[in-house]
Amino acid sequence: MSLLVVGSVAYDTIETPTERREDVLGGSALHFSYSACFFSPVQLVAVVGEDWRKEHTVRLESRGVDMSGLEVRPGGKTFRWTGRYHENMDDRDTLETQLNVLADFDPKLPEAAQRAQFVFLANGVPQTHLRVIEQLQGADLVVADTMNFYIDTQRDSLLELLKKIDGLMVNDSEAKQLTGETGALAAARKILELGPRFVIVKKGENGAMFVSRHDIFLFPAFPTENLVEPTGAGDTFAGGMMGYLASQGTADSETIKQAIAYGTIVASFQVEGFGAEKLEQITRGDIDERLAKFRHMVNF
Amino acid sequence: MSLLVVGSVAYDTIETPTERREDVLGGSALHFSYSACFFSPVQLVAVVGEDWRKEHTVRLESRGVDMSGLEVRPGGKTFRWTGRYHENMDDRDTLETQLNVLADFDPKLPEAAQRAQFVFLANGVPQTHLRVIEQLQGADLVVADTMNFYIDTQRDSLLELLKKIDGLMVNDSEAKQLTGETGALAAARKILELGPRFVIVKKGENGAMFVSRHDIFLFPAFPTENLVEPTGAGDTFAGGMMGYLASQGTADSETIKQAIAYGTIVASFQVEGFGAEKLEQITRGDIDERLAKFRHMVNF
Repeated sequence: MSLLVVGSVAYDTIETPTERREDVLGGSALHFSYSACFFSPVQLVAVVGEDWRKEHTVRLESRGVDMSGLEVRPGGKTFRWTGRYHENMDDRDTLETQLNVLADFDPKLPEAAQRAQFVFLANGVPQTHLRVIEQLQGADLVVADTMNFYIDTQRDSLLELLKKIDGLMVNDSEAKQLTGETGALAAARKILELGPRFVIVKKGENGAMFVSRHDIFLFPAFPTENLVEPTGAGDTFAGGMMGYLASQGTADSETIKQAIAYGTIVASFQVEGFGAEKLEQITRGDIDERLAKFRHMVNF
Repeated sequence: MSLLVVGSVAYDTIETPTERREDVLGGSALHFSYSACFFSPVQLVAVVGEDWRKEHTVRLESRGVDMSGLEVRPGGKTFRWTGRYHENMDDRDTLETQLNVLADFDPKLPEAAQRAQFVFLANGVPQTHLRVIEQLQGADLVVADTMNFYIDTQRDSLLELLKKIDGLMVNDSEAKQLTGETGALAAARKILELGPRFVIVKKGENGAMFVSRHDIFLFPAFPTENLVEPTGAGDTFAGGMMGYLASQGTADSETIKQAIAYGTIVASFQVEGFGAEKLEQITRGDIDERLAKFRHMVNF
């Protein structure tokens, strides 16, 4: 079934303790698409500036990503983020954020995108998410991501959004911040009361937890032995999950469980390279092979 | 098969944000035994003072714990620990440690204990662990726990110990401290080079990881909705694991995997009460019921 992502596309500058790279392909919608396209065609809606290189559009199209919803704004400049990871690779400092064309991103969905059945609203302004939802025509599943900044500054819009989505994807600390709870499970249950039928709490290297009214699923992260840099891990996790769901055409609990396992695996590859470089090197076969290893590590 | 634990027995004073309790049953060997006895008879070797209450010996004996190795030292006082948990229940401050009779604990194994096939050396002085190992007559499986204090101050003895045990159980941060590695998996692999055939890295509310030369198993923690206080969670985890292994009479990888699942479940009950009170209230049936729920949460 059709899958839509609305989010950011960026050129990142990333510093790790051992390396620095400029003009790395980034942004939530881009990382999501690189991941989801292993499972399903993807329609991307985002905005870039005239510094966006056409070859990057071609590269995504060749992977099955419909780029007709990418607005290239004349005279504008693509969103740019610069970050530096600490020695532990967990903590990072944002050195610079240039929103550029993202500052007034007001997504207009192409007709095909309006009819998408699976929709992911990547981390972004809650009011923008709401305007996207107004354009949808009977989506089966709408999942949104959010972050601490919007919880702090746009709580009312976020609460309005929560009433209109099926699933929320959120970091551990953000779930606690949103609800005032100290435990991840209690926080997830409180979010369910605010609207969505499920919540996925992301805990980075400690995995993820899915909570609905009837089920709890627990996922460790796949243990990485070759961590290069983790930018985009959350979005590739979401992309693997949503891509698999779209490929199955359903979002019942058992299918979501499989989907989260796939998301976990794609994210584990993502962190093995800068930007999207690792996902460009692997195949669906590599993903399935690692999934089988993961199943052996986890199932008992 | 026969199971031996050597460690501490204590009276703890525990403060949480909502409650304070004195003379709570504590100590690594005690918590281990309360857990392991759901699966197998246990032989406990420890030392207490003359303030130790006979009723507590009786209570443990009634649960299948052989207390003949409990040395009650005349004129001595039982080990006492006082701790205060922070609001998040993760961090705690040790307010007071009175080693008392534990200060010169020099375990002499009763004859039956010398022939134990499964042995757990609970967190303690590495030289003491070594003297216990010298008394063993052909144990099948020796697993030891350790802590940051010994890694800092008695590294040489600890390295000697690592060459003589089958498995090490260690906290995430301690595994990193011991090896200088920043990732838990890399740290575990480095510990394998130091001697043991497996390492279990405990990550508290984030579960545990088993690493051997051939296998990696990943376990999330069972999500607790009723956290009272977590003292002894690590030792009950170990007790559930070792008790199950002793009941099966083998320690191959697949059996260890099941055993860790059991350890996870007993630990999830442990944190629902002060000291050993929760484990006194539950049955093996409760454990198996929660294990089935856990399997549904985890297996995919």
